[in-house]
Amino acid sequence: MQRYFIKENNWLGDHVIIENDDAKHIAVVMRMNEAERIVCVHPSGKAALCTISQIEKNRIEAKIIDYLIDNSELPVRVTIVQGLPKGPKIDFILQKGTELGAIAFQFFTGERSVMKWDTKKAKQKMLRYEKIVKEAAEQSHRTHIPHIHEVCSLTEVMNQLEENAIVLFADEEAVRDGEFAPFQSALKKVKNAQHLYIVIGPEGGIADSERQFLLANDAIPVRFGPRILRTETAALYALACISYEFEES
Amino acid sequence: MQRYFIKENNWLGDHVIIENDDAKHIAVVMRMNEAERIVCVHPSGKAALCTISQIEKNRIEAKIIDYLIDNSELPVRVTIVQGLPKGPKIDFILQKGTELGAIAFQFFTGERSVMKWDTKKAKQKMLRYEKIVKEAAEQSHRTHIPHIHEVCSLTEVMNQLEENAIVLFADEEAVRDGEFAPFQSALKKVKNAQHLYIVIGPEGGIADSERQFLLANDAIPVRFGPRILRTETAALYALACISYEFEES
Repeated sequence: MQRYFIKENNWLGDHVIIENDDAKHIAVVMRMNEAERIVCVHPSGKAALCTISQIEKNRIEAKIIDYLIDNSELPVRVTIVQGLPKGPKIDFILQKGTELGAIAFQFFTGERSVMKWDTKKAKQKMLRYEKIVKEAAEQSHRTHIPHIHEVCSLTEVMNQLEENAIVLFADEEAVRDGEFAPFQSALKKVKNAQHLYIVIGPEGGIADSERQFLLANDAIPVRFGPRILRTETAALYALACISYEFEES
Repeated sequence: MQRYFIKENNWLGDHVIIENDDAKHIAVVMRMNEAERIVCVHPSGKAALCTISQIEKNRIEAKIIDYLIDNSELPVRVTIVQGLPKGPKIDFILQKGTELGAIAFQFFTGERSVMKWDTKKAKQKMLRYEKIVKEAAEQSHRTHIPHIHEVCSLTEVMNQLEENAIVLFADEEAVRDGEFAPFQSALKKVKNAQHLYIVIGPEGGIADSERQFLLANDAIPVRFGPRILRTETAALYALACISYEFEES
């Protein structure tokens, strides 16, 4: 069933008001009619089964029938901390990372980032990124839209970690030297309420100074399998394994 | 280090001849010079550390220094059996599935496949697909180039399985009814030498008749996490978890 994230102000007692792009999607793209059913998701994460009761231009009213018991969020909160890659890869990581359950994305300008972050275009880009994660969250039946943090440096990321956070990073250097923790042994230390940060370098990987900085800050080097993954594949590998460990056992 | 798959005829005693696109890649794209090092991979999977000894137009000679002990192939052989999706998704599944270790790809025309397979363009398309997997295999440091089977029907796939194969399929229906095996419990039954086939429906999912057919042929329904994954994400989820289970414990 089609899902829409609806902002708090539009929940009015026993019904919900759907506006703008979402209303257009229901009326024009999906060509839905009155009495058809959709799922509306409240910012708190509650999902409600609704019946469309009125279709007007750019405004749809839906009656709440029942609240659903949804369990589509990862039991571990995972933020993907990604060295800024080239343009289309950002879209890809946001879309697929949302499908796979990330709670937030934090891009950082890595030493080896080829792509520079253009702060002039930042606002416009962020709007586009937010649209990508909202649509992916709806499509994958999530009850939470991942947050996209402002781009910053790796130092800033590490200074703003949540308390008791665990930081893992994909470390090619450690893999070459055989000094890595198997990903399973690292993940098995994570508890349900903990916030897990997965740090992944940009296309050129993590620079040696960044690696030293991460190690000095208790980040744990891990391996994502013995093959060399492209930067945009690493986040997906990590999220799929986290789902497998915490949701599919 | 850059890797190149070299066909059998070009291995001549203590040196290797590199031609065509690969020679161009070394000389023009990578701008490498004599005495620089590359890795050449034999069709048997053996990887050799080599030094470039001679650069000519479209032909490069490299001297074998040593054979490497490579361990970049999944211990379980995994074929991705994928309901034919729309065009660009095929490229995506081939590239990322190769990075993540699939041994072969088998696309089938699912009942709900929107995309029809144009047999007239098949030869040309297959050449392009083979280029995608070769490049992804080189980039990810694999010693095996995945095989891409000719497109066929799901019945044909199931009739041509290797003996003792295990077939798992992503089943949204079972997930809705709560009648699925957790992916971990299904994977833990797989032994190292077994061939594992992962069946994934096209965009619209697996049709009910296909589902019944798979079940009647001992395929096991599994869940790839509680979120709804796009068809092109499902193969990656499966491969990442297989790596996690067999390589990262």
